[in-house]
Amino acid sequence: MKLDRYKSIALLDSGVGGLTVAREIMRQLPYESIVYFGDTARMPYGPRPHEQVRGFVSEIIEFLYTQEIKAIIVACNSATAACSDYYRNGVGLPMLGVIEPGVNAALRYTVNKRVGVIGTTGTINSGAYQKVFQRLAPDVELFEQPCPLFVLIVENGLVATREAYRVAEEYLQPLKEAGVDVLILGCTHYPLMMDVIQEVMGPEVKLVSSAQETAREAKMILEEMALISPNKAGLPLHRFFVSGSARPFIEIATKLLGREVIAYQVVLDQKTSFFDLD
Amino acid sequence: MKLDRYKSIALLDSGVGGLTVAREIMRQLPYESIVYFGDTARMPYGPRPHEQVRGFVSEIIEFLYTQEIKAIIVACNSATAACSDYYRNGVGLPMLGVIEPGVNAALRYTVNKRVGVIGTTGTINSGAYQKVFQRLAPDVELFEQPCPLFVLIVENGLVATREAYRVAEEYLQPLKEAGVDVLILGCTHYPLMMDVIQEVMGPEVKLVSSAQETAREAKMILEEMALISPNKAGLPLHRFFVSGSARPFIEIATKLLGREVIAYQVVLDQKTSFFDLD
Repeated sequence: MKLDRYKSIALLDSGVGGLTVAREIMRQLPYESIVYFGDTARMPYGPRPHEQVRGFVSEIIEFLYTQEIKAIIVACNSATAACSDYYRNGVGLPMLGVIEPGVNAALRYTVNKRVGVIGTTGTINSGAYQKVFQRLAPDVELFEQPCPLFVLIVENGLVATREAYRVAEEYLQPLKEAGVDVLILGCTHYPLMMDVIQEVMGPEVKLVSSAQETAREAKMILEEMALISPNKAGLPLHRFFVSGSARPFIEIATKLLGREVIAYQVVLDQKTSFFDLD
Repeated sequence: MKLDRYKSIALLDSGVGGLTVAREIMRQLPYESIVYFGDTARMPYGPRPHEQVRGFVSEIIEFLYTQEIKAIIVACNSATAACSDYYRNGVGLPMLGVIEPGVNAALRYTVNKRVGVIGTTGTINSGAYQKVFQRLAPDVELFEQPCPLFVLIVENGLVATREAYRVAEEYLQPLKEAGVDVLILGCTHYPLMMDVIQEVMGPEVKLVSSAQETAREAKMILEEMALISPNKAGLPLHRFFVSGSARPFIEIATKLLGREVIAYQVVLDQKTSFFDLD
């Protein structure tokens, strides 16, 4: 038997956005234990240079390796984009980003082959979505729109405000005009303002949540590798670590996940890295 | 099969002293993974009120519960003494202190039934050793001596100095005069100055290391409960967490354990406790 089946799935994000992926993992894979790392002290990742984000991700993965894990989900589009060249290899474990799962779903849904992507400035400027579409479906016309304020709206609890709606209208207008029939929420924070986005885009546009699609793909990969935790493994043990203060994270995560959350602040940058992704 | 076998053994201490227990666990149980917590930000525990130490231990155990553990060793005599009334029950896992293992060993070795115990002021004043001896061997005459400076000598790397020898002579004189034939090192720091203590006491006095005896007893308990990690579990994963800065701990631990050490600083007191030992 594979003992690794009983290990945990690791998720990392710049903050709370990856919790949408965690929530989907809990829903789709209810027997899996989750170790979550939110780099709240250094969020947002969106505007940061890729080199720096890669360094952060490397530090976080080094920490996650202390946690008996069997797979790593980079539950952050900015981090996935920054690490896109190498995140699938070289860490000794199956590693999954949030970009390809969303693209795969969009290709299943689009009829008119006009697909929109919204994300942080870092994600959009990285061209990460363009590269994946060019590889998987060069005939699809892609319309991209950075929405830098969305992360801050979500992290500050402002989703249900009039300003949020106005900002969404402003950002999404070019995509409506382009006539996309699928819109990828290319940031794990965006499912938290899905209602606003759907209302602005109109009911005929299919929204693709990276979170949901990534959890689905994680499940497929774990199944293929015989790494699914069996029912009889007992109650899953979810634990959360953050680089910033634990209290505000606990509040948001408790609300978002609808369950009690155990979270600790961990200081990451006190030792030189023995592990390097590059 | 018991899956818990593959979980880790947790050790907690006020600082680096418990590393002597960790080292013995690594030696006697080479397939076991260790999670170590050193409360370096709040050490020493010796002079603190028991109530406060109990609160600290409770916080640490709450953290250790996030780490997939199968047993807890309170690898600190002061903490064991502070929690002596209840540490064996109520945490849902086998839990072992460092006092009883040392007493059991002393009873095996003593011929003249005159046993010495050295420890921190907190441990000695707690009467914890007296209680255990009274219960297990009321005929043994006990001679106790607090040695508060020893922890500071060890933590500051001063073991091999002339002052350390002078301090040891001062502390140990009454025990020599009492004619003990066994001396319990009733603090997990003390094995680190065993040579000095042995030289002062003379070769005919048998020194009992809590660390060695505790590892031996942990092994017995895990064997009885069928919780020993099998050889085929793969390389053990040792990880260390501290409440203070990680760097100085890493330096000491690397030297003491003779291997590379992964350690992170964790902030403990940011959430109210959902778990309470009392």
